[in-house]
Amino acid sequence: MDEQKFVAGLKKKFPFHYGLGIGDDASVVGSHGHFQMVSSDILIEDVHFRLQDISQRELALKALAVNISDIAAMGGRAQYFYLGLGFPSRLSGKELRHFFTGLSQGCRKWQVELAGGDYSRAQKMSIAVTIIGQSQKPVLRSGARPGDLIAVTGPTGESALGLKRLLAGEKRSPYIRAHQRPQPQCAQGLLLSRYANAMIDVSDGLLLDLSRLLAASGTGAEIAYEKIPVTRSFQRACRRYRFSEKELVLAGGEDYQLLFAISPRQESRLRKTKMVYYVIGRVTAGRRLLVREDGRPLQVAVFGFDHFREKPAGMK
Amino acid sequence: MDEQKFVAGLKKKFPFHYGLGIGDDASVVGSHGHFQMVSSDILIEDVHFRLQDISQRELALKALAVNISDIAAMGGRAQYFYLGLGFPSRLSGKELRHFFTGLSQGCRKWQVELAGGDYSRAQKMSIAVTIIGQSQKPVLRSGARPGDLIAVTGPTGESALGLKRLLAGEKRSPYIRAHQRPQPQCAQGLLLSRYANAMIDVSDGLLLDLSRLLAASGTGAEIAYEKIPVTRSFQRACRRYRFSEKELVLAGGEDYQLLFAISPRQESRLRKTKMVYYVIGRVTAGRRLLVREDGRPLQVAVFGFDHFREKPAGMK
Repeated sequence: MDEQKFVAGLKKKFPFHYGLGIGDDASVVGSHGHFQMVSSDILIEDVHFRLQDISQRELALKALAVNISDIAAMGGRAQYFYLGLGFPSRLSGKELRHFFTGLSQGCRKWQVELAGGDYSRAQKMSIAVTIIGQSQKPVLRSGARPGDLIAVTGPTGESALGLKRLLAGEKRSPYIRAHQRPQPQCAQGLLLSRYANAMIDVSDGLLLDLSRLLAASGTGAEIAYEKIPVTRSFQRACRRYRFSEKELVLAGGEDYQLLFAISPRQESRLRKTKMVYYVIGRVTAGRRLLVREDGRPLQVAVFGFDHFREKPAGMK
Repeated sequence: MDEQKFVAGLKKKFPFHYGLGIGDDASVVGSHGHFQMVSSDILIEDVHFRLQDISQRELALKALAVNISDIAAMGGRAQYFYLGLGFPSRLSGKELRHFFTGLSQGCRKWQVELAGGDYSRAQKMSIAVTIIGQSQKPVLRSGARPGDLIAVTGPTGESALGLKRLLAGEKRSPYIRAHQRPQPQCAQGLLLSRYANAMIDVSDGLLLDLSRLLAASGTGAEIAYEKIPVTRSFQRACRRYRFSEKELVLAGGEDYQLLFAISPRQESRLRKTKMVYYVIGRVTAGRRLLVREDGRPLQVAVFGFDHFREKPAGMK
């Protein structure tokens, strides 16, 4: 089963009459400049994280961050959330308190509030967060038009590099930190709601998330690899550990940068703000996603990615 | 750790400024006759259910039912929900389809819609549902006043009897069915929003849930055991299997009946509707919860229940 088929099947089986349901970063219900967005994400021990790799405090912050990112990706402001926590009895009460300390820090940092939830014992720790936000003008995945520019708010691949190093036994590095403490692009998302035609957060990899945005918009794109932001130290780290830089940049997940399509006219306006972003390509009329490096097409299929085919079951 | 302390600690650590947050069946945000309620519940394999005891279809219906019941318990109408599904790869795609078939049946039955969610592999199946509903006049747990009558919409203990028989290896009986297919009291909840002062659903046991309502209201109560509805066949089944009838009726969970406090004046109005309910006691000014049988006090502590002390950690 692939995700796109699965989601398409669900959309058909479960029509949603209150607004926009399954298929974007969040649902959208509302009208006339008052929209409520809701997003729901789960994190499960030994699927999304291993307890030895991340502290309870960081885990709570991360669970909150990835949900806040979904609201930011639609140009909204996150307000409050619900927590469904499955907590293993093998962990101590102290660990549980650390989790709630992290959650409380996240609430202050991102100005969100805990509104309710549920708690249960569990064999494997699981964290389900449902977050509610609002927007005057939600930005959907489906608004990209041929001729739009494609841009990203920052580098991708750093979190994936951190994860690889964690799995190799390393304890600390800026990349491990990027993996453990993702930063949702809240201010950027809000600002972009005034300029962008379509938006998504890069949670599962630049090309995969871009392909979702393009599929929703019914368009294709051409990306110039050399325009994607990559730091010198990231390149050095890739060489040192013999990681494929392109694979990390194009297919590495969990950076939570915002990826957006914007008309050239709006982009010239956005340029006057102080927001940092990088134009990496252009939306095309076809359905193809083409990545070039200095003009030569890249075989992106070698990165486990083949145009609109998605990752196999499991999805994350 | 006991739940009441845990929840009180969370309420203090996580103030909620949008409305009513932690501590009732659902959060409530809104004003002037337009209130949005949100409730979030998790069901985890081998904690809340065993896969051999319930079909995927019934499991989906049950996950939906318990959340809808939370909205009904506040006098609201459930509208749409978000699903966070952790699904074990040892289960087949067919099982997954059965789950969504059940979910779809629940949507039709209770007039709710799936608005979004998340899906992941998991070692143990986990189902997180966050449901959104609305009400013109939410009924909180905290509105009971001394002199109010206490009533319940139907028998309790039947689901717990069903669970005991399931664990003993029985496959089918009306009680097992009551356990596998709980029926949220939607119409009753809506009607009661016009009459009741306080309400809760009986998810964790009559006395435990009553104690929560009383604690939230700052009141006590006197209950007459002989007024709690119990069917003849239930009594016979208890005798046959040597189960303590009182323990099941007073402490058995998952019946999802509504338990409410109502002023005598409103109760005389409610009597004119066709709704079935049973007055089982009265709210008192103290903080004590006293259960009598034909006038003689019952030692309710023997049912694992001691006034305002809650169940130990785990909570469900």
